[in-house]
Order: sequence, then structure tokens, then C-alpha cells
Amino acid sequence: MSPKGDRTPATKRIRDLPDDRRITTLADGVFAIVMTLLVLGIDVPEVPEEEIADRLVGEVLWLWPLIAAYVVSFLYLGIYWIGHHTQFHYMRVVDTNALWINIVFFMFVCLIPFTTRLVGAYDRQEIALSLYGANLIAISLAALAHWRYAAHADLLEAEVGRTEMRKATRRLLIGAGLFAIAIGLAFVDPRWSLATFIAVPVLHILPGPVHVDWTR
Amino acid sequence: MSPKGDRTPATKRIRDLPDDRRITTLADGVFAIVMTLLVLGIDVPEVPEEEIADRLVGEVLWLWPLIAAYVVSFLYLGIYWIGHHTQFHYMRVVDTNALWINIVFFMFVCLIPFTTRLVGAYDRQEIALSLYGANLIAISLAALAHWRYAAHADLLEAEVGRTEMRKATRRLLIGAGLFAIAIGLAFVDPRWSLATFIAVPVLHILPGPVHVDWTR
Amino acid sequence: MSPKGDRTPATKRIRDLPDDRRITTLADGVFAIVMTLLVLGIDVPEVPEEEIADRLVGEVLWLWPLIAAYVVSFLYLGIYWIGHHTQFHYMRVVDTNALWINIVFFMFVCLIPFTTRLVGAYDRQEIALSLYGANLIAISLAALAHWRYAAHADLLEAEVGRTEMRKATRRLLIGAGLFAIAIGLAFVDPRWSLATFIAVPVLHILPGPVHVDWTR
Amino acid sequence: MSPKGDRTPATKRIRDLPDDRRITTLADGVFAIVMTLLVLGIDVPEVPEEEIADRLVGEVLWLWPLIAAYVVSFLYLGIYWIGHHTQFHYMRVVDTNALWINIVFFMFVCLIPFTTRLVGAYDRQEIALSLYGANLIAISLAALAHWRYAAHADLLEAEVGRTEMRKATRRLLIGAGLFAIAIGLAFVDPRWSLATFIAVPVLHILPGPVHVDWTR
Repeated sequence: MSPKGDRTPATKRIRDLPDDRRITTLADGVFAIVMTLLVLGIDVPEVPEEEIADRLVGEVLWLWPLIAAYVVSFLYLGIYWIGHHTQFHYMRVVDTNALWINIVFFMFVCLIPFTTRLVGAYDRQEIALSLYGANLIAISLAALAHWRYAAHADLLEAEVGRTEMRKATRRLLIGAGLFAIAIGLAFVDPRWSLATFIAVPVLHILPGPVHVDWTR
Repeated sequence: MSPKGDRTPATKRIRDLPDDRRITTLADGVFAIVMTLLVLGIDVPEVPEEEIADRLVGEVLWLWPLIAAYVVSFLYLGIYWIGHHTQFHYMRVVDTNALWINIVFFMFVCLIPFTTRLVGAYDRQEIALSLYGANLIAISLAALAHWRYAAHADLLEAEVGRTEMRKATRRLLIGAGLFAIAIGLAFVDPRWSLATFIAVPVLHILPGPVHVDWTR
Repeated sequence: MSPKGDRTPATKRIRDLPDDRRITTLADGVFAIVMTLLVLGIDVPEVPEEEIADRLVGEVLWLWPLIAAYVVSFLYLGIYWIGHHTQFHYMRVVDTNALWINIVFFMFVCLIPFTTRLVGAYDRQEIALSLYGANLIAISLAALAHWRYAAHADLLEAEVGRTEMRKATRRLLIGAGLFAIAIGLAFVDPRWSLATFIAVPVLHILPGPVHVDWTR
Repeated sequence: MSPKGDRTPATKRIRDLPDDRRITTLADGVFAIVMTLLVLGIDVPEVPEEEIADRLVGEVLWLWPLIAAYVVSFLYLGIYWIGHHTQFHYMRVVDTNALWINIVFFMFVCLIPFTTRLVGAYDRQEIALSLYGANLIAISLAALAHWRYAAHADLLEAEVGRTEMRKATRRLLIGAGLFAIAIGLAFVDPRWSLATFIAVPVLHILPGPVHVDWTR
């Protein structure tokens, strides 16, 4: 049923499974809803009847910053969801502290529709770009705290889990560093900041050493 | 527990199961929310107290394009959900690339509430009908990419999965072709375009060769 | 793992399980979201700073029709969710037609936030009360169609499933009849119609012959 | 598969499992959505083009009461979700009455986005603080009713479930008492009331006797 049980006695395995399943159901629900709520940030333009012929196409085309923000945030959510997935793949058991770290992680993930709409509406403003970057940094640090705590409290499957943790730690810290740079760039030239926010997920997703081979 | 394990050694089966379950939980969550968000596109008319007797019935009846758009999009989501269901029924394992193709698929599915509201609000405008059609084409192509990649990377259960893939490929390409025609018709007469968008799911759902017999 | 397998050969059971699990995950997702979206129908009153002391309490108290509509719709959703739960408890397998009946059922369930807001906003108007009643009738008939089809296509567990179906059929038809009466009453006196819509779930939930004993 | 089965005969265990799984899937869905909907209470400020330079930073900073309300409500939802999780960890079987107590529990949980927005908008008003407190009391009492009923109807796993129930009862009653005090303080000084609402989850989460060790 699960990779987590093989090293624990049968009665313990039985007890642990439901916990693990519920926190991942909650996680999948949160990610599914946050992904879906992003679309509410793209409003249908309201054009009066008599101006539709003149203005509707233009108004729709001018939605592009909102759509770009939607796509970029969706990719970030995909990255964090796959990361969360990887974490739980290597967890043996869950304890209450780990549940709370998850809930704080969700709290930052759930802010993404807000910070995304903020950037979509004010894509050249330092305050919007800074909050977006801060949101991503907070999510990364919460994910990192979860890995560190899981290793510390011996919740990971021995060896493979720790190896994976080191790789994830490096990835999360590099990400947080790049987001900090993007925040800094917002005060120099917002376009460079935007370019950084767009480049990070693209580089992350392109095939390379960051790929986890699930079939292994 | 799952049809995917029978051809893999026991340890591998144990590792693969959770992945598969989480991506389908995410998928079911995304579809459930997108289906439900569609209703937010139907606004309750705001009629001032003193005009209720005169105007409310008319205002409610004039919601019909929004309700028609709701029904049609719901049927499309039903078709794509059943298609996704079929795909995963025949998948043996999942890898990171497949997860990413899924996330891109979800990204297009999550746009449906936006493009549906656009068509509901501007049902005679080429731009609205084109974007709706483009959204459906993008979903179909993402589903197709998932089938092709799954076959290419040997993620399908041998034989039956490949047979099913060929049927699905044909269906998805026919669908994409019809949506392209509907986009073209939008520039000739929007009513023909609308009729095409309404006809496709009805024809798809009516009993016939497209039916998958799950009890087989 | 499931009551559905005991009468089918092993390979069949393995194939059927995932389908069953996914349609119920989708159902639980849809119900969870519809329940939650109901609250969006209760708007926080916007009172200008200088009038807060005078008006806020009154404005909040005047939310009571919206809150009553919320509670009543929540109870109906509870009834239909438990009914759906009961249906799937007695289903042996699922086929594509059953999936489609479910999707149509979800389509009517997802309209509840709209018809609830309509009644909350216009609780004395025939059109609002009629649409609310029609929505409940449509959900009941879709649930009924699912039971009848499941019996017809031999998807139910023999005996116990059919006994349960007869009880559910009676309950669903009585419900649909009462909703039809409530619609009629809307044209006589809206208050009687409202009282009927409120009385039905209360009577349904009060202990009595309608109770299914899950522990049996 | 589940800790609930060990004291029941095999056929009974098979019947009970699906019920248990579906109510927890519904619960996880409801919590995931309520957590996520909270963010819709934080509106992106609408600042006209020409005033952005002057006003946007200020407007964003003035969102802090909404963000504080978001964080506090998120923590409460985390507490109640972990509590629900604990309850179902110790439940042996579910019956229809327990399902209904859960649905009433969800009904109060789903009101949180409304009462949170109310407090976020009117954080110094007795009516807003009282409704927020009343909402939390209602959730706590519904959770308490579920524990009491589960013990009364013999749905708990013997011993350990009852021990856990006594601890949870004490926690829930202390919580309800503190919320009642916070409501009273709203009429003395709203700031003390707010401080109480903020202190409760912080004290609850800080390590101490309230911690449940899931790995036990």
C-alpha cells in the first residue's frame, strides 16, 4: 500500500497510514483550488453593447498581463505540488509538528491568487513584485522547514529520503535566492524582475538534473 | 488495488501507487472545482425593489445564454474528465514528465470558467467564440500529448492501453478539428459556430462506438 | 477494500475499483465545493465609515434571509450527499452511462449556489422559488435515474442494493412531489412555499424510517 | 488499511471502510476550500493609473487587518482540521447520525470565510467580533457533539478513543469558554477581544500538553 510501512511493525503501519493519506488529500485539495482560483483573477471585460464592435477585441487582448501572471503562477504551483509530492513519497510517518508545518505551507500557497492578481494588475510596481517574490520565498522556506524537520524527527525513510532531501534543500535555497534577486531587480527595472520570475519556472521544468525519475 | 502493478516487481508497485493516486486526486479536485466555479458565471440579477414585479422574471429569463454556456461547458468537462479517467485506467506508472503534461492540461482546463463567461457575455463575437474554441483545442492537444508520451515512455499497460490510445487519439483529433471549424464559422455566422460547439458534446455523449464499457 | 468485489472474479475487481474511487472523489469534491461556495452568497455589508455606529448591526441582522437560505441549502446538500453515498455503497461496478448520469447529477447540484442566492435575494418572488424547486426536482430525478439505471444495467449488489433502491425511489419521488407542491404554493403565498422548502429537510433528517443504519 | 477494523468481523469491516473514507474526503475537501476561499477576502486595491505612484504602497499596507484576519482564521482551521483528523483516527465505524453531526460541523466551518471578512472589514465592531466568536463556539460545540455521540453510540475504538475524547472535550470546552470571554471583551474594548482571538490559536499550537503524538 505504501512505501512508508516496510520498516515499521505492522500495528504501527496500520495507525500511520490514515494520517498520511489525509494530509495529502488536504494538500491536493488546496493545490487544486488555488490553481483553479487563479482564473478568477482574469475578469471578463465589461463593454457596453454599442462599443463591442470597436473595443471588445482590444480589451480581451489587453488581458495578456493577467493571462501571463496566470500561466507563471500555475507553473510555480505545479513545481511546489510536485515538490510536496516528492516529500511525502519519502516520508515514513507524520507527526503533529509536521502537520502544522504543512498547514503554514498551505497558508502561503493559498496567498498566491492574491499576490498573482496584484502583479497582474500592477506589473510595474515594486510593491506588487516584492510581495509576489516574498510569497514564493515563504513557500520555499516552509517546504524547506518541512524537509529539515522530517529529517530531524526521523520521519523520512532512511537513506533515499535524506539524499532526496539534500537535493531538494539545494533547489529550494537556489529558488529563494533567485526570488530575492527578483525582488531587488524590481527596484532597478521592473521588467528585469518580471523576466526573472518568468525564467525560474521555465528553467526548473526544462529537462536536466532537477528531474526526479518516478519510475526508478 | 490497481491494474498497474501486475507487470512490475512488488517493490516497484509499492513505490508507484502513491504517485498515481495523488495525481488523480489532484485531477478530480481540479475538475470538481472548475465544474463548480462555472456557476459563478451566472450572476443573480440586481433589480431595485420597486421594479421587481415588472422586471425580475424577464431578467432571469435573459440569463439563458449564461445557463446554456454553463450546460455546454459542463458537458465538455464531463467528456474530458471521463477521458482523463480512461487514460489513467490504462497507465502502468507515472513519471515527472507525465506529471508536467498533466499540469499543463489542468492549466487549460482551469481556463474554461473564463472562456465560458466570455462566450456567455458575448455569444455573437468572433473573439469570444475563437478563444473558447482555442481553449478546447488546447485541452484536447494536451490530452493527446499525454497519451503519446505515455506510449512513447512505456507508461501504458501493454496492448490494451495502446489500443485504447489509438481510439482516444482519433477522438481527440476529430474534436480538435471540429473546434477549428467552429472557430472558422464564428467569422461567417456566430450562430453556426455556437451550434457546432453545442453539437459536439451531444454527439459525443450519445451512445455509439465512442462508448467505453467500464465493466468489460 | 470494497463491498463491490465479492461477487466478481479477481481480475474484474481489480479493474473496477479505481473507477469507483474516482467518481466518488469527484462527487465528494463537487459537494465540498458547492457547500463552501454557498457562503459566497452572504456578502459582508459595505457601510461607510461614518455610518457604522448607526447602521452596521441592522445591516448584519438583515442578512438573515441569506443565512436561512444558506442553512436550508446546506441541509439539502447534506441529504443528497448522504443519498449519493448510499447509492455507491450498494454499487458493484460503474459503467460509462452511470458516469454520465452522475455528471448530469453534479450539473444540477452545482446550480444550487445560484438558485440559493436567487431565493436569498428575492425570497417572496415566484420566479426565484420556482427555480429553486425546479433545481431540487432535477437533482432528485437525476439521483432516481442513477438508481433505476444501476438496477437495470445490473450494477447493484444483488438483493440488498435493490431493497435499498426501492426505499430511495420512494423517498426521492416524495421529495420531488413536495418540491412541486412548494412551487405551486409560491403562486398562492410565497411564505407557505418557503415554509415547505424549510420543512422538507428538517422532516427528512429527524430520526425515523428514513434512517439508514450504516453500522448494520 | 485502517485501525477501525481490528475489532469487527471481516464482512463488517469491508462494509464500513468506504463510508469512513468518503466522509473524510468530504471533510478534507471542505477544509481545503474554506482555507483557500479565505484569500478571496483580501481584495487587490483598485488605484487609478495616475495615483498609483502616490497611493498603491499605502493601500497595500492598509490590507494588514485583512491579512491578519486571514492568518488567524487559517490557524483556527488548522486546529479544527487536526482535531477532526484526530477524531476519525479513533473512530471504529460511522453511522448516519454521525454523518449529520459532521455536516452541521461543516456548515459552521464554511461560515468562517464570511465571519472572517466581517472582522477584517469591521475589526473594532462588537457585532463583527461577536459573530466571529459565535462561529468558533458553534464549530467547537459541533466537534464536541461528534465526540460525545461517537462515545455514546459506541463508534470509538475502545479505551484509547475514550481517553482521547476526554482530552478533546476539555480542549474544546476551554476553547469555547475563551471565545465567550472574547465576545464579552468586544463590548469592553475591541482590542482586548482581538488579542484574545489571536492568542488562542498561538497558545494552542505552541508545544505543550495539547500535542498529540501521531507517531505513538
